[in-house]
Amino acid sequence: MAALMDALFRPRSIALVGASGDADKHSSLPQKHLLQHGYPGVIYPINPRRDTVLGLKAYPSVTEVPGPVDHAYIMLPTRQVQAAFEDCVAAGVSCVTIMSNGYSEAGAEGLQRQARLLDAMCGSHTRLLGPNALGVVDLNAKVALSANEVLSLKELPVGDVGLISQSGSMLGAILSRGAAAGVGYSKLVSVGNEADISVAELIEMMVEDRETGVIQLFLETIRAPEALRRAALKAHAAGKPILAYRLGRSAIGQDLAVSHTGALTGNGKAISAFLKDIGIAELSVFEALLDAPPLFRHRRASNGGIGVMSTTGGGGALIVDNLGERGVNVIAAEEPTRERLAQKGIDIGSAPLVDLTLAGTNANTYGAVLSEFAEAPEFAAVVAVVGSSSQFRPDRAVAPILSVEAHKPIAVFLTPNAVQSRALLREAGVAVFSQPEACADALSAWFHWQHPRTQPDEADNITLALPPRSNDENTLSAAEAQTAFASLGIPQVQEWTLPTDPAQWPDSVLAAIKFPCVLKVSSVDIPHKTEVGGVTLAVSDVDMLRTEAEKMKARISSKLPGARIDGWQVQEMIQGLAEVLVGFSDDPAVGPIISVGMGGVLAELFQDVSIRPAPVTRDEAKLMLEEVKAFAPLRGYRNLPIGDLDALADVVAKMSNLARCQNGHVVEAEINPLAVLPKGQGVRALDGLIVLKRVVESPSLAS
Amino acid sequence: MAALMDALFRPRSIALVGASGDADKHSSLPQKHLLQHGYPGVIYPINPRRDTVLGLKAYPSVTEVPGPVDHAYIMLPTRQVQAAFEDCVAAGVSCVTIMSNGYSEAGAEGLQRQARLLDAMCGSHTRLLGPNALGVVDLNAKVALSANEVLSLKELPVGDVGLISQSGSMLGAILSRGAAAGVGYSKLVSVGNEADISVAELIEMMVEDRETGVIQLFLETIRAPEALRRAALKAHAAGKPILAYRLGRSAIGQDLAVSHTGALTGNGKAISAFLKDIGIAELSVFEALLDAPPLFRHRRASNGGIGVMSTTGGGGALIVDNLGERGVNVIAAEEPTRERLAQKGIDIGSAPLVDLTLAGTNANTYGAVLSEFAEAPEFAAVVAVVGSSSQFRPDRAVAPILSVEAHKPIAVFLTPNAVQSRALLREAGVAVFSQPEACADALSAWFHWQHPRTQPDEADNITLALPPRSNDENTLSAAEAQTAFASLGIPQVQEWTLPTDPAQWPDSVLAAIKFPCVLKVSSVDIPHKTEVGGVTLAVSDVDMLRTEAEKMKARISSKLPGARIDGWQVQEMIQGLAEVLVGFSDDPAVGPIISVGMGGVLAELFQDVSIRPAPVTRDEAKLMLEEVKAFAPLRGYRNLPIGDLDALADVVAKMSNLARCQNGHVVEAEINPLAVLPKGQGVRALDGLIVLKRVVESPSLAS
Repeated sequence: MAALMDALFRPRSIALVGASGDADKHSSLPQKHLLQHGYPGVIYPINPRRDTVLGLKAYPSVTEVPGPVDHAYIMLPTRQVQAAFEDCVAAGVSCVTIMSNGYSEAGAEGLQRQARLLDAMCGSHTRLLGPNALGVVDLNAKVALSANEVLSLKELPVGDVGLISQSGSMLGAILSRGAAAGVGYSKLVSVGNEADISVAELIEMMVEDRETGVIQLFLETIRAPEALRRAALKAHAAGKPILAYRLGRSAIGQDLAVSHTGALTGNGKAISAFLKDIGIAELSVFEALLDAPPLFRHRRASNGGIGVMSTTGGGGALIVDNLGERGVNVIAAEEPTRERLAQKGIDIGSAPLVDLTLAGTNANTYGAVLSEFAEAPEFAAVVAVVGSSSQFRPDRAVAPILSVEAHKPIAVFLTPNAVQSRALLREAGVAVFSQPEACADALSAWFHWQHPRTQPDEADNITLALPPRSNDENTLSAAEAQTAFASLGIPQVQEWTLPTDPAQWPDSVLAAIKFPCVLKVSSVDIPHKTEVGGVTLAVSDVDMLRTEAEKMKARISSKLPGARIDGWQVQEMIQGLAEVLVGFSDDPAVGPIISVGMGGVLAELFQDVSIRPAPVTRDEAKLMLEEVKAFAPLRGYRNLPIGDLDALADVVAKMSNLARCQNGHVVEAEINPLAVLPKGQGVRALDGLIVLKRVVESPSLAS
Repeated sequence: MAALMDALFRPRSIALVGASGDADKHSSLPQKHLLQHGYPGVIYPINPRRDTVLGLKAYPSVTEVPGPVDHAYIMLPTRQVQAAFEDCVAAGVSCVTIMSNGYSEAGAEGLQRQARLLDAMCGSHTRLLGPNALGVVDLNAKVALSANEVLSLKELPVGDVGLISQSGSMLGAILSRGAAAGVGYSKLVSVGNEADISVAELIEMMVEDRETGVIQLFLETIRAPEALRRAALKAHAAGKPILAYRLGRSAIGQDLAVSHTGALTGNGKAISAFLKDIGIAELSVFEALLDAPPLFRHRRASNGGIGVMSTTGGGGALIVDNLGERGVNVIAAEEPTRERLAQKGIDIGSAPLVDLTLAGTNANTYGAVLSEFAEAPEFAAVVAVVGSSSQFRPDRAVAPILSVEAHKPIAVFLTPNAVQSRALLREAGVAVFSQPEACADALSAWFHWQHPRTQPDEADNITLALPPRSNDENTLSAAEAQTAFASLGIPQVQEWTLPTDPAQWPDSVLAAIKFPCVLKVSSVDIPHKTEVGGVTLAVSDVDMLRTEAEKMKARISSKLPGARIDGWQVQEMIQGLAEVLVGFSDDPAVGPIISVGMGGVLAELFQDVSIRPAPVTRDEAKLMLEEVKAFAPLRGYRNLPIGDLDALADVVAKMSNLARCQNGHVVEAEINPLAVLPKGQGVRALDGLIVLKRVVESPSLAS
């Protein structure tokens, strides 16, 4: 990895393939940017139609360059790329960045083009960034290898944030905004289509990189979830937080991400759940990407809430309101904290916002309150709001903040346009915000940030009871699905079958039936049983079962004279407190996921479903149940009877084991409905389906 | 009003009561600010302990000033304010601003203090701004009458936005941010507690003011909803849009607003519904206050969606995703638009985001697409996203935007830090955004912006069937509520009563009963009927009614031997598709409101309720029903049977008439549940309650 990092970020020599001397063309920019930022290595412009490009000797091909080339940057029209890339491989170039587009993001033809690139590098030592990648920047090594116009900025502050972006233009926008705000970056990479070098591998490089302390991702999709999980674990082990902003949170945004990246994109909620699961904090306000990093130097050490202090009531309320909207718990100081401040003559009251008013702008009062808040165990994090003094007396306004030694995050929100205070705080490594939404979003992301979850190892793989099947069958029958679910240990509703003639009903079966039960007709001629009166509820004993079967027979023969009755299905009658849906699927973006929500249309309408990468343990499943709002009645809301949530969590965990089924690949499975009985009485699956991956492989390329 | 406007905004003379010469004190600032911004009138510092203040002759009291005083600004400690205010009244001062706090925002004692101020001005011509008001600024008249530090800024751009703020410090923050962003203001007022001059009256002044074109509100509460409605109607008639940002959208924010303003604050959703109803557009991203105004020069002229064009795929997707999250309809160009562009050699594709890529940054392409979008009838508004060119070639980047003549809003989103482009666009009156969330929020607010609704006149008042009652009864019995609702024309479930002995059941009643029906025992000894088997569903005829009554009698006498049976209640059996809640209440902040949502706990958990100021017409009620997500099944979602939503809308409209009940003041009313039957079969109220205002008035002051 060290060799690749050198070639990618700190190449000793760079070939600019397709370099132009025309300042109006984008292909002139990388050379200009490299020189402007003081690149110390050798630059080889590659241009068969020129002797020199912008004062440097040009070469017709990478193969004709006099020395070794660490990194080649290809910016040719699409049709010329393949040959130039093959030249690079032939010349033993260590790393090639292809800026040109027209690959996997451009439909089937582009996909084939991209496959040819991979064929060309097969067996060589050459590695590829892109195609459709805008390049790399290493501000410490003075490598500005990109056509991104943002590099024409003379001053780019150096810092410890490493950015990996699936959008080249947004990398430029972030760097531009960061430069204006004084946010320094170490390295920035535009990954393009990730044909070879992936976001995951780049995270691993940033983990190795001494100059990078925080890793930022601008994402449009997830391409290799398992590699990303491994990389995130390494970043976590190295104590480097990863913050992500992602496009595709809305349905239309998701559609765009698909068309823009050419990647398969699954459920947006699944991607968020996956990022959270692997310990990546997701931001949802764009500006928060710049402002949030210092908060993430501290892990959440307690279950405390957030304390908010302010010298302006309105400004403080702005933050509290925004935190409240995001469900972050803002709390008042507890009695010991208030008492300690009262001893210093400061009355902070008992509201969840400490408004010191103008009188509190003096450094003594402000500093005393902030110090106490920084120590108070009830606060996991603190927001310090500063009003007009931050604009007009910046030194005095920031002094009490800079002098606090805190072992928890302190977020500062400045209400006016306070450029100097912002710069002073940022230079000191304090998280400072000028947008209330960005402040609340960053704190919310920090609050929900968790350690990556380790997945159970392969030894725990399970074997599912599956029927023998032919290659083109992929959906199990209801009975087969029931058997498979039962083999996972998921309780099923009990069923008995009886022959058509009640005189022939076996006593052993009748003795086994649990009453009250449901009687259903069994007939291949009757697809919709209820329409012909083929279902009777609440049958209370054997006599009634006989009578109702006779009545049903009469009803059916009058309504559907030709229908043949194959027999009777008798089902345990379950009256649950709720009917729940438990789903499993192999998401195209993030892999196996497990979900649980209320059955029926409302869960769908309100998107009230909890999702996790599968498998999950029983304890994790319990946390999932807490996220589902519609389960509030089952939790005893308003004194409603409590449901057996332990049994439900058990089913969620068992269902999630489909992710490690070793005798078949489950693409999709669903139990709908699963009846939840009162606490202690368990749950019962009433219906379900399982879809397996077809065994036969398609000979044609996926499109 | 003209005289008050002059005294408030353009006073010829100002008395600064409590003016200090100590530059460290806030009470020195108004004088400094007035001079700094070139105030052309006379300033009288009032300070009994000094001969001069900051070089001007000081007076011991307003009564001893040699000339007339148009405006006095009181910044004394609370205990000295009353006397100084009485001096102002005695001296015939036209307008007094009280900056001092300790009034209605400070509990019962403060409320009494505020009442004494009003007593003192009673009968005089003096008007009061505040107390707890930070002052007024008129940038055209060079009046900077406030202790707000933001006025120490030398350059404050003048523009056509008038700001009315319930938070003094946030007025400063907004002005500070506006100055940095080049957003010009005409007038700014901090209203404080609105003891006399209200937000509503100030809106009317801004309507009269030639220098103000757009009115902005920073709100913490609503104090006089009817006056605000009248003012908003006037602003609408004058073609001046009103934009509001409001604190208290979250539950905790709402609690804070109550404690911060001392005002009664009702339901946050009710306030939003009220603002929308009176034609005020509500923003929910703070920065949008600065950026949104130019969008509101145009009313929504069509039912079209939003067109988004970009030179950066990532930047365009950022906007589309944010619009999608807010439920704003982003659409692709229709065939004729695409065809016209194709004739110019521009292929824009059929995606809902037109990504012209870097190649489209040339003014010809960009301008051609934008011009077509500006004309295309499918687009109600257009977002033009500009990438790095906006930072590095601002003139060329903004040229195509400035040259478009549009009769619809065009919002520009700049992805990098593009200071010059932003300034050029802003100066030209184009809505320009640098935060994607602010851009989407402003467009969403514009999309939902509606003409103020005119309320029906008093002639339509209704008379409710109410029982005679004593002064201390305020909740109607179930039967009384049923009678009252029936008098509004709301269909009730039918009920019949029968004597205990079936032998004595009158034939006339039996003939009237609609079967199937529900049989219930009537007994004062049995509070929980179902527990003793006192309810039987689905009784199909008179014979069964007799049998079931006998069975019920037997059950009850075995379970509750002593219970006396008073008779039988027979109720029409209603099997609705859904059970709905229709609620009416007199909200403390915004007055009468009507709400409708699904019954049961889920509507509450998901806050899935539509609210409007009452009364509403049947058509408005229909629009309300469309807002309730949980009604999707009743609308035929997934082929479910359609409910009688016309009948439901009718009940909502009739219930909302409680707002104009002329023979009683209804504080709260609720029908829960109201059964909704299939389309064409109507609805039935199954249960309800009505709470009336107590007739007797409390002799003590409300606290």
